[in-house]
Amino acid sequence: MAKIAILGFGTVGSGVLEVLRTNADKAARRAGQPVEVKYICDIRDFSSHPDAALFVKTLDPILNDPEVTAVVETIGGTKVAYPYVKAVLESGRHVATSNKELVATHGAELLALAREKGVCFLFEASVGGGTPVITPMYQCLAANNLSEVRGIVNGTTNFMLTKMEREGMDFEGALKLAQSLGYAETIDPSADVDGIDAQRKICILASILFGRHFYPQNVAARGIRDVSVKDIALARRQNAAVKLIAWAKQTEDGPALAVEPMLVPRESQLAGVDDVFNAVMVRGDILGDVMFYGKGAGKLPTASAVTADVLDALRNGGSIHESLFWTDSEPMEGVYEDASPADRYVRAEGGAAAVRAVFGDVEILDEADGEIAFALRGKSVAQTRALCEEAARQDVRVKNVLKWLTL
Amino acid sequence: MAKIAILGFGTVGSGVLEVLRTNADKAARRAGQPVEVKYICDIRDFSSHPDAALFVKTLDPILNDPEVTAVVETIGGTKVAYPYVKAVLESGRHVATSNKELVATHGAELLALAREKGVCFLFEASVGGGTPVITPMYQCLAANNLSEVRGIVNGTTNFMLTKMEREGMDFEGALKLAQSLGYAETIDPSADVDGIDAQRKICILASILFGRHFYPQNVAARGIRDVSVKDIALARRQNAAVKLIAWAKQTEDGPALAVEPMLVPRESQLAGVDDVFNAVMVRGDILGDVMFYGKGAGKLPTASAVTADVLDALRNGGSIHESLFWTDSEPMEGVYEDASPADRYVRAEGGAAAVRAVFGDVEILDEADGEIAFALRGKSVAQTRALCEEAARQDVRVKNVLKWLTL
Repeated sequence: MAKIAILGFGTVGSGVLEVLRTNADKAARRAGQPVEVKYICDIRDFSSHPDAALFVKTLDPILNDPEVTAVVETIGGTKVAYPYVKAVLESGRHVATSNKELVATHGAELLALAREKGVCFLFEASVGGGTPVITPMYQCLAANNLSEVRGIVNGTTNFMLTKMEREGMDFEGALKLAQSLGYAETIDPSADVDGIDAQRKICILASILFGRHFYPQNVAARGIRDVSVKDIALARRQNAAVKLIAWAKQTEDGPALAVEPMLVPRESQLAGVDDVFNAVMVRGDILGDVMFYGKGAGKLPTASAVTADVLDALRNGGSIHESLFWTDSEPMEGVYEDASPADRYVRAEGGAAAVRAVFGDVEILDEADGEIAFALRGKSVAQTRALCEEAARQDVRVKNVLKWLTL
Repeated sequence: MAKIAILGFGTVGSGVLEVLRTNADKAARRAGQPVEVKYICDIRDFSSHPDAALFVKTLDPILNDPEVTAVVETIGGTKVAYPYVKAVLESGRHVATSNKELVATHGAELLALAREKGVCFLFEASVGGGTPVITPMYQCLAANNLSEVRGIVNGTTNFMLTKMEREGMDFEGALKLAQSLGYAETIDPSADVDGIDAQRKICILASILFGRHFYPQNVAARGIRDVSVKDIALARRQNAAVKLIAWAKQTEDGPALAVEPMLVPRESQLAGVDDVFNAVMVRGDILGDVMFYGKGAGKLPTASAVTADVLDALRNGGSIHESLFWTDSEPMEGVYEDASPADRYVRAEGGAAAVRAVFGDVEILDEADGEIAFALRGKSVAQTRALCEEAARQDVRVKNVLKWLTL
């Protein structure tokens, strides 16, 4: 019998308890022994909960109980979660977490600590919710050198973009709907709509890809606030969908990564990923592209992934970090940009003549109501930026620029 | 340093050697030690091969060398592969294989033997080529009870159907093209086009799903020979694609599984899986649907998956078969059918009046050139069969029946 503790009894934490009880047989089979939740740590009052006897308010009773061999962390944030997880790993116990902020901020340090102590620090649930992404990346693609990862990793914004595309809703309408369904935070939805959540997730994927830690502050992240129904309709006419893409790739000048809304051609599997679904595509030198697709969030899917991790830890022990590992690195100044030329869609106020005077002989995609949309091909980020600045001086007001995703 | 042997130096076997040498660093990291191919067993003459010194013609030198701890089997078929793999497992060595026929025929026995000997018998490459399917199924979805699996698991027929849809090729033309590109066998392409390959793969997936062995002879398999360009065009007008689907699910009457061409609605991710790509969708009680997508075959993708398995075996040892396991069972009479009602598309020779006299007040989808296509809804397999037999007696010649895939 393995005994574990759950830290943080919110949505995901309570889901883990539910999953372990509902599918106790499956869990025991995978862990090689029955698994029992012995403690739940939460500062809130759960004295009238049916499992009131399991609740503790601090980490100490857990650390002092030698029967507990693994801990699930679902507190979120880093203020409490970081010192708690560190203390658990230092005590020689496994940790499974769904906390992307923790992994994106302190992943390298916690992995090194886990490796030193011969225990597991696992975080499959931090990217893709319940969809397996991280485990297949380091395990099933182990014979590959990975060169690129790209994905739709935020279900809330993907839901909003789907509503904007299918029902012609504007950003505000789609946001209100997402909030009313509980997909977006009501008070401050910026973690989703400004790409902060996706920024953390791409840091985790990039750290696996490149074998060293990438910090959120070094990743340019644009959300979907400036994506309009017009952009989506124009993209559609170009046989593309607008998706919030988190990407990381090896370029000639080194690693590059970002989060940005992009035009995804229909031929890409990512274009058909709708609603709250997530999908991550990984490119290996031997295997080519593989994609992992599933529901990106939700109580039980996320709990399913954390639970699978804790079962894996109980079964395998710590040797996993020979392959799931990245080295520490210092945050740098600025962001990791891709300097190579790319094709972009530009929407601006102004006529074709004014646009061509600045951007050259570009292909006009649409012109209506004083606005023009055109394709700007083969320009780098810096060139595009310079052209947009020049445009502002020439009274051509650029309203949106979206990069085309290459296949 | 781990030493391994490769049995069968065909496409996949030579790919494994290439992968292990090209990505030696990655392989060593995952296995926890460098990995060297010490023997290659093949009855053919490789005396002028650069690695001629590694070749042996029988299994004995490998079994007699205590340095060899794992073996890759890529011979194919069962005649030689079965006794060889059995002998290797009995000697206490790990086996990784890409041989779907071997697993579909003797999987339960070989898994039990591996478990008894405390070694691994792994076969990720037997389904989906290089795409991770089996490992995520038993590992990442470990907290889920799986209820259903459905997928496009044969790249050759998917390539042919894509050509038929996009370029209006007929079956014969698409087959010739697939043969000229090396996707289909030139002498006897029936393993692909008659669904035999997919039948073996769904047996493997169903065995994992239900925890007991399913034999190919108990699985109804239809290939794509009777799919015409007309069916594909009519499906398109119904907003669906024709795909060869291998499926297994828990029904009220027990397990059901089959391989058949189906109408896949565009809303399904499977509808967008084109060319030689494979995709497998798994439904878990907690997680919902997840899909694994990638190139289904080819020398290096398949080699990549076998290699990942052998590295996994070298790192993990045999405890893996606590969770990757199914019990043996006897083949039964007949096939596992799904008796529940379903919607079907029917194409027949005859007029609307004659069709309605037999099938009732069905929805006519198309009528042209003496042929009629209609939707037959909510009928079981047995009811459909009886209706088609009655139709034959009434001079309504049914030319094709395709089930709609439910989402």
